[in-house]
Amino acid sequence: MPSSLTVADLNPAVLNVQYAVRGELAIKAEDLRNQLELGQQLPFKRVINSNIGNPQQKGLDQPPITFWRQVAALMEYPPLLELVKDKWPSDVLARAKELQEEIGSVGAYTHSKGIPLIRKHVAKFIAERDGYPSDPEDIFLTGGASAGVSLLLNVLIHPHETGILIPIPQYPLYTATLAQFNGVPLPYHLSEPDGWSTSISEIESAVTKAQKEGIKPRALVIINPGNPTGSLLDLPTMEAIVTLCEKHNLVLLADEVYQFNLHQPNTHPFHSFKKAVRKLNSPIQLISFHSISKGVAGECGRRGGYFECTNISEDVRAILYKMVSVGLCPPVSGQIGVDCMIRPPKEGEPSYPQYKQETDVTHAALAHRTKLMAARLNGLPGVSCVDSPGALYLHPKIELPVAAVKAAEQLGKQPDTLYALELLEETGICVVPGSGFGQKDGEYHYRLTCLCPGVEDYVGALESFHRKFLEKYGGL
Amino acid sequence: MPSSLTVADLNPAVLNVQYAVRGELAIKAEDLRNQLELGQQLPFKRVINSNIGNPQQKGLDQPPITFWRQVAALMEYPPLLELVKDKWPSDVLARAKELQEEIGSVGAYTHSKGIPLIRKHVAKFIAERDGYPSDPEDIFLTGGASAGVSLLLNVLIHPHETGILIPIPQYPLYTATLAQFNGVPLPYHLSEPDGWSTSISEIESAVTKAQKEGIKPRALVIINPGNPTGSLLDLPTMEAIVTLCEKHNLVLLADEVYQFNLHQPNTHPFHSFKKAVRKLNSPIQLISFHSISKGVAGECGRRGGYFECTNISEDVRAILYKMVSVGLCPPVSGQIGVDCMIRPPKEGEPSYPQYKQETDVTHAALAHRTKLMAARLNGLPGVSCVDSPGALYLHPKIELPVAAVKAAEQLGKQPDTLYALELLEETGICVVPGSGFGQKDGEYHYRLTCLCPGVEDYVGALESFHRKFLEKYGGL
Ligand SMILES: Cc1ncc(COP(=O)(O)O)c(C=O)c1O
Ligand SMILES: Cc1ncc(COP(=O)(O)O)c(C=O)c1O
Repeated sequence: MPSSLTVADLNPAVLNVQYAVRGELAIKAEDLRNQLELGQQLPFKRVINSNIGNPQQKGLDQPPITFWRQVAALMEYPPLLELVKDKWPSDVLARAKELQEEIGSVGAYTHSKGIPLIRKHVAKFIAERDGYPSDPEDIFLTGGASAGVSLLLNVLIHPHETGILIPIPQYPLYTATLAQFNGVPLPYHLSEPDGWSTSISEIESAVTKAQKEGIKPRALVIINPGNPTGSLLDLPTMEAIVTLCEKHNLVLLADEVYQFNLHQPNTHPFHSFKKAVRKLNSPIQLISFHSISKGVAGECGRRGGYFECTNISEDVRAILYKMVSVGLCPPVSGQIGVDCMIRPPKEGEPSYPQYKQETDVTHAALAHRTKLMAARLNGLPGVSCVDSPGALYLHPKIELPVAAVKAAEQLGKQPDTLYALELLEETGICVVPGSGFGQKDGEYHYRLTCLCPGVEDYVGALESFHRKFLEKYGGL
Repeated sequence: MPSSLTVADLNPAVLNVQYAVRGELAIKAEDLRNQLELGQQLPFKRVINSNIGNPQQKGLDQPPITFWRQVAALMEYPPLLELVKDKWPSDVLARAKELQEEIGSVGAYTHSKGIPLIRKHVAKFIAERDGYPSDPEDIFLTGGASAGVSLLLNVLIHPHETGILIPIPQYPLYTATLAQFNGVPLPYHLSEPDGWSTSISEIESAVTKAQKEGIKPRALVIINPGNPTGSLLDLPTMEAIVTLCEKHNLVLLADEVYQFNLHQPNTHPFHSFKKAVRKLNSPIQLISFHSISKGVAGECGRRGGYFECTNISEDVRAILYKMVSVGLCPPVSGQIGVDCMIRPPKEGEPSYPQYKQETDVTHAALAHRTKLMAARLNGLPGVSCVDSPGALYLHPKIELPVAAVKAAEQLGKQPDTLYALELLEETGICVVPGSGFGQKDGEYHYRLTCLCPGVEDYVGALESFHRKFLEKYGGL
């Protein structure tokens, strides 16, 4: 095909963007799935997409929460009320009616910051969670947390001048978006031996290094609970982070989309940065992100989420409003999801027993799988895996045989990419190589989700592949 | 509140963004609506948001299409089938089942380009519309057309170097997004005396001017049917545009979101640029945008749309895929909307009679209002309004009294902004001043949608306001 528009003609920033979660491995997985559908013989019966935290995808089939979906169905087609009014719980009907009265039709553009009533509910949720007030004007509903992160980075970055501190390993949305907007990534390493903890001195060094290089550090990204690490911050560390932001005048970007994914909530609770900032009475600028894609709802496809601005001046907030208004509004189905997430059925309400049962089962399954997988992975030669108190992932470190490293080099691939590709080809399990998240030189990891059907079989497949891989490349 | 993050610290490109559709007027309208809700006395009973093509908004209440909403409700909550299987039309049930089998849960992230089956359906729709084949791999589903336009401009623009030809007046998404990505707007004027027609020589001059100034023209934006103009291109003009793109190596960005909004389809039909390009066998690169927000569905809140790539090389397409994958996927509710839009019930199917009745009523209402409003506006002193064969808007030109222009100057406002503000304060009708879309120096316009309840009262209010305004400022 004649093309006068070549890749070289495109925006160079865009060419630099990398996003491993849906990169080479995911494309290969798609390919293999198509082959299976065409009836080709492969060493496995199905592809399992452990590369992405997508609980409701086909094959994983984490069930949706009934309450959410009944409310959503009524919002889509209000005359349905006639058919269900004696059949569905009264709190579902009441919720739909309340939202209906506020929103009117789900087919209308809403306020660009999101439906005012839902923003009020979010503020109430935050106030109750933290014990500090929240203002609906500080809340922006978004099409997933991704949209919010993208907006904030776009607004904060002066191209080629502004540095953004990001954890390594990180969720690659951050490096991808930094590349897109010509921000300078300022990596700070999490400490794997201490359970992927966040070290203040690591961040301090990254700040100092940037300043020496003439880059202005403007914001600090913290992902808590962590992706890909599954780690969880304690309050003293969070307070030290706030103090550090104060010292260096950094905007804190707190990605808290996994705040409901806690496997040991009694011993490892979640604390929001909003609470830490208010507790310290700190003037730092904070943006906190949340999403409906995670937790036990896992409603990724709706594209819903929000961010809250703390200590952000009214005129900066007005700029954010202007920018979201160009995109008109976040998807209404995601906005309704946000309302369901932060106003779930309460004890005593008719939907509560089913809601509790559904969410308990999912929480328990995630905790069980995480624990079992971490234990079994730790039993493999050359594998060490930090046990995770939160989020949806494990991020095992793998030692690779010298011959495997050489073979990868010859293919022009990262060694852990080679490992992940062979894993996919042998077992149908698609993971993301550690190189996609960042890691220390000479170290190798991969990230897998703790979402899978039949965890025994699944982890068994990981184990036997690993042993075969070591054998194939002459052992460690 | 202490803030070390001031507006001056933000990305200068972001500060340059302007978006009048949700700008000063819209914010003022929000304010007045709140005052009414608090029981304050104003010269009107309700605010009518004629600033934005949002058919289903409260107060306009264009009814949704039943077929869409029944399918959507079933997708949200599949067990609903039990309750409705003897009550809803069988084609609704069949459509939901088909989509269900492909998608699984609407709560899952989909393919980043959109659900493969729906992309196939879009390709089939395009092939049937144009009589030329379309490849599902060339289709990207998006969260509204806005998301697609933003992506393409981001990818095409080298900051401060790349020029993008845009019509004046234009839908301000274009100038806003150009500002965001540091693209250089290369305006070409539409010819109001010829019904807002597109002139090749105007575009040629804009190209020449850019080249003289060292700016590289890279793409040409055409909005057809036009917003804010409501004009419609004929095939010879389109072919001349394609030839011009060939000559200057321009990517053609064809915003065709109003392709179903035709008031006189027999005498003024829509032709797609895809068809023009194929008919001429032209190698030009074309991206065509469509949306579910307009037409007679008006399903803005779902955020659905698509773009088709024509003559775009596979590696450039791969870059687009990479970029959309960072945002994970478009909202599923919008994707389902796209399927409903391009596969409506067909004659003979059980949902067809109701579908036909519903869509006929809306088409007729839009055509009637457009005609009546244009005629009545043309009857006012100092007002001239091009009658519109398509889209959802009128864009009357208004002559303003010298005293009004002076008064505006003293307030630091554009004269048509003053006019629009007073219109809002007097009547509750919110329109967008022409300065928000671009216009020739010394000319004034405003854009209003042809969506309104009770068109007689509505246009009556416009008329009496206009006469009073002229009187107040001493006449023309
Ligand atoms: C840490 C983190 N932040 C943000 C997101 C974005 O999710 P969404 O855009 O679906 O809300 C994800 C998704 O996996 C994530 O892991
Ligand atoms: C010409 C034009 N293009 C694109 C859009 C974007 O619409 P959406 O993002 O809702 O599809 C609009 C909305 O009014 C429009 O008028």
